Amino acid sequence: MLLSKLCRKSSGAASCKLLVRSTSGVSKPKYDYDLVVLGGGSGGLACAKEAVECGARVLCFDYVKPTPVGTTWGIGGTCVNVGCIPKKLMHQACLLGEAVHEAVAYGWNVNAQNIKPDWRKLIKSVQNHIKSVNWVTRVDLRDKKVEYVNSMGRFVDAHTIDYRTKQGERRQLTAEHVVVAVGGRPRYPDIPGATEFGITSDDIFSYEREPGRTLVVGAGYVGLECACFLKGLGYEPTVMVRSIVLRGFDRQMAELLAAMMTERGIRFLDTTIPTAVERQRNGTLLVRHHNTTTQADGGDVFDTVLWAIGRKGLIDDLNLAAAGVATQNDKVVVDHTEATSVPHIYAVGDIVHGRPELTPVAILSGRLLARRLFAGSQQLMDYTDVATTVFTPLEYACVGMSEELAIESRGAENIEVFHGYYKPTEFFIPQKSVRHCYLKAVAEVDGDQKILGLHYMGPVAGEVIQGFAAALKSGLTVKTLLNTVGIHPTTAEEFTRLSITKRSGRDPTPASCCS
Amino acid sequence: MLLSKLCRKSSGAASCKLLVRSTSGVSKPKYDYDLVVLGGGSGGLACAKEAVECGARVLCFDYVKPTPVGTTWGIGGTCVNVGCIPKKLMHQACLLGEAVHEAVAYGWNVNAQNIKPDWRKLIKSVQNHIKSVNWVTRVDLRDKKVEYVNSMGRFVDAHTIDYRTKQGERRQLTAEHVVVAVGGRPRYPDIPGATEFGITSDDIFSYEREPGRTLVVGAGYVGLECACFLKGLGYEPTVMVRSIVLRGFDRQMAELLAAMMTERGIRFLDTTIPTAVERQRNGTLLVRHHNTTTQADGGDVFDTVLWAIGRKGLIDDLNLAAAGVATQNDKVVVDHTEATSVPHIYAVGDIVHGRPELTPVAILSGRLLARRLFAGSQQLMDYTDVATTVFTPLEYACVGMSEELAIESRGAENIEVFHGYYKPTEFFIPQKSVRHCYLKAVAEVDGDQKILGLHYMGPVAGEVIQGFAAALKSGLTVKTLLNTVGIHPTTAEEFTRLSITKRSGRDPTPASCCS
Repeated sequence: MLLSKLCRKSSGAASCKLLVRSTSGVSKPKYDYDLVVLGGGSGGLACAKEAVECGARVLCFDYVKPTPVGTTWGIGGTCVNVGCIPKKLMHQACLLGEAVHEAVAYGWNVNAQNIKPDWRKLIKSVQNHIKSVNWVTRVDLRDKKVEYVNSMGRFVDAHTIDYRTKQGERRQLTAEHVVVAVGGRPRYPDIPGATEFGITSDDIFSYEREPGRTLVVGAGYVGLECACFLKGLGYEPTVMVRSIVLRGFDRQMAELLAAMMTERGIRFLDTTIPTAVERQRNGTLLVRHHNTTTQADGGDVFDTVLWAIGRKGLIDDLNLAAAGVATQNDKVVVDHTEATSVPHIYAVGDIVHGRPELTPVAILSGRLLARRLFAGSQQLMDYTDVATTVFTPLEYACVGMSEELAIESRGAENIEVFHGYYKPTEFFIPQKSVRHCYLKAVAEVDGDQKILGLHYMGPVAGEVIQGFAAALKSGLTVKTLLNTVGIHPTTAEEFTRLSITKRSGRDPTPASCCS
Repeated sequence: MLLSKLCRKSSGAASCKLLVRSTSGVSKPKYDYDLVVLGGGSGGLACAKEAVECGARVLCFDYVKPTPVGTTWGIGGTCVNVGCIPKKLMHQACLLGEAVHEAVAYGWNVNAQNIKPDWRKLIKSVQNHIKSVNWVTRVDLRDKKVEYVNSMGRFVDAHTIDYRTKQGERRQLTAEHVVVAVGGRPRYPDIPGATEFGITSDDIFSYEREPGRTLVVGAGYVGLECACFLKGLGYEPTVMVRSIVLRGFDRQMAELLAAMMTERGIRFLDTTIPTAVERQRNGTLLVRHHNTTTQADGGDVFDTVLWAIGRKGLIDDLNLAAAGVATQNDKVVVDHTEATSVPHIYAVGDIVHGRPELTPVAILSGRLLARRLFAGSQQLMDYTDVATTVFTPLEYACVGMSEELAIESRGAENIEVFHGYYKPTEFFIPQKSVRHCYLKAVAEVDGDQKILGLHYMGPVAGEVIQGFAAALKSGLTVKTLLNTVGIHPTTAEEFTRLSITKRSGRDPTPASCCS
């Protein structure tokens, strides 16, 4: 009874001190470790730390292979080193550049003419922050008594991991459970010059040279975010869109986002694929390309080419065949318990096939897995209604279904879409464009109108949507939303003012401000 | 059937075209208007516009009495002219001043040494924005066919309103329903020099002269916000606290907010009341004061004295006695339907006794009242769990119960408080203080741990809390909150990471960032 109470509580609190060892009594354990985690990124570390909290003996491997141009980094995985964190810092740098101009409009006596960022200073600041996080991560692992080996672990068999020590010796160890959390890395296209002359998001955040005119190939969120921060820092990015912008996201919002970027001077090459990259005598890069609509071939010259055409799972070095773990398209296949085809081998994070490649997903699924393995928890990860944000100058955040998905799954006649343009109070004095400040709620048409998806483009979108994600998980309806009193003046309150349906055909632009 | 369907929908959508006239057939209406609204602020205008949408014949009176120093303004009430909107713009000006300094840390080549705001330019920008909103409000009323009279309406009897035309004639008109929405204005203390030499929030946003060293008397949210934007603009505010800071708010959060202000160099005079204001020969103001704890008398010299000691309802000029409307402490008493002691006379907004003085409360209650009066709606305003935000440099937003209220109403043993300090990613590079970035959830201790209150201090608090307010209305529990996947990196995601209870005694400072 006490035990079950403790476990119930632990589903809320992070800690769980139940000592559920894989062995009983004092006999020697059958395996060296209760758990070995392959990969020290967000998911692997969260799983490893939680498992130790639950009393397990845990070892975590982490190793970073250098990129083709030689970039490498420390512990913590993609998010800390070459993902969310540096990306958000570059985004923030851009917002601050805008803020300097806005400050002038608000009466600050600052000279905002021709202000420029110092790329190297920015990169140094970003890298210093990353190194401090690497250090904090190491200390945290030590404090939490997670063993850590800076080496690549690979399967010998389903319970045995082989690795090379710092001194170059090969060693083996055994584990009762293994969690594969090695993540992914950016893909390169299979065209001449791609790896020789191109870089990826793995390189850009520590790139010593100013990127200059940059071709960003790929219009997923990584590509768009990179193009936007390059633009915000004063460079000239071009986005090469092979098929559509932001595949998998709500189409209207994706197109609004592209329109917002175009308004800010970012060039798009639509339905175009690169065919070769050649270095010219003056050091610039000639990118040959082919328009798949017009069938025209062309070429443009850039200082930097950045591939953002998707990511591949890092399964190649794991020798998964030796363990019998099934894979699909460079990724590991798991069931709803995160178990692979081998019951005691699990996978979490970006290495998992068909799951959102998001840090908090990796963290929570890793943590819940550890609790199930070592603390008797039954709680499964809930992959529905995961909110996310694209950190472009106007940010786009969403949770739940796109309008297309809702219509496809429920039928257009069963869906009501509430929408509206809005004008952030802060935008007026600096006369910032409000053309793309827009939000919508996709809901059921009947009853209290359960909300299926929320979409928001505007300032601090991630901060705005997070609470609504909790609301969606709590069963938010349009009735409740419109009875929620707004916080004035915010942009988030616009959700509580949504009154115009697409079906009505009424103008979704606002008239009054505060009545 | 169709009718009821239309009405049900209208509880969601704003418009309701049901023509529910107070008269039947073609006979002359008994009253000149179905509805007269006294007061063209947020609540009055929202009610008037909605009533017209519902087919009612509506007239709205609005009149602004000048302040003692002669400040006056246009239509729209407190929020637009001397409240939320100019306050938020001043707050934004301060954030942008900070942003200039942060931009330097991020590598922008801007000279942030000794930057100063141009007070007159800022005031002019703020006033220009307000005038544009006044204009939009007038156009909106005209478009929506709300009759508007720029005059003070007063009761002759319960159905008759008297007013003076622009030409100076006195006129009367009759109304079936009357909504009192005249709002409130800042109080002045009853001490020598108060009205001669002091100003209030009614004056500061159009104040031509730089405020300089300013004494802000009162530590409610208006006083604290004014002190903070004066500090952020480079002046030297002192806050005179008569009893406690932010009465009515969560005590821990209020004290954290005061500590944050102190860290930023704002001086507090605790348990002190002013006794007189005297103009000195050099034009400065000598404020004599008395410390109610030490009993010491003292005096300090300021350039400006700003009273923020609370607001009084504007009932004096309404002749409410003639209509028989009951009042209490300068405010109008209403029941749960917004009806006063006279059944066909209602009140909404800041003039109502015992309700939150917040724009969105006024708007929603006014709108719902109009639907009940003219569109057959039954829906009452829900005054529970109204979120609000204090726009100080680190903002404080909350929804639901304070920790004290939860403990008082439920008993300490039935309450679990989850809390944590956190470090916004963006704060690292400019090395901003994270000491007061803190959040907590006040919840039931049992079951899924229903959340009773959420409190957050940090960047963009209003944007963060709005969605959680919708979640609270949807029955948010700790279980659901902790199963909500975070949006990384945001500060709002910290709510999904709350794992430490006050009861556990564990350290609520964070270790790791992204795992």
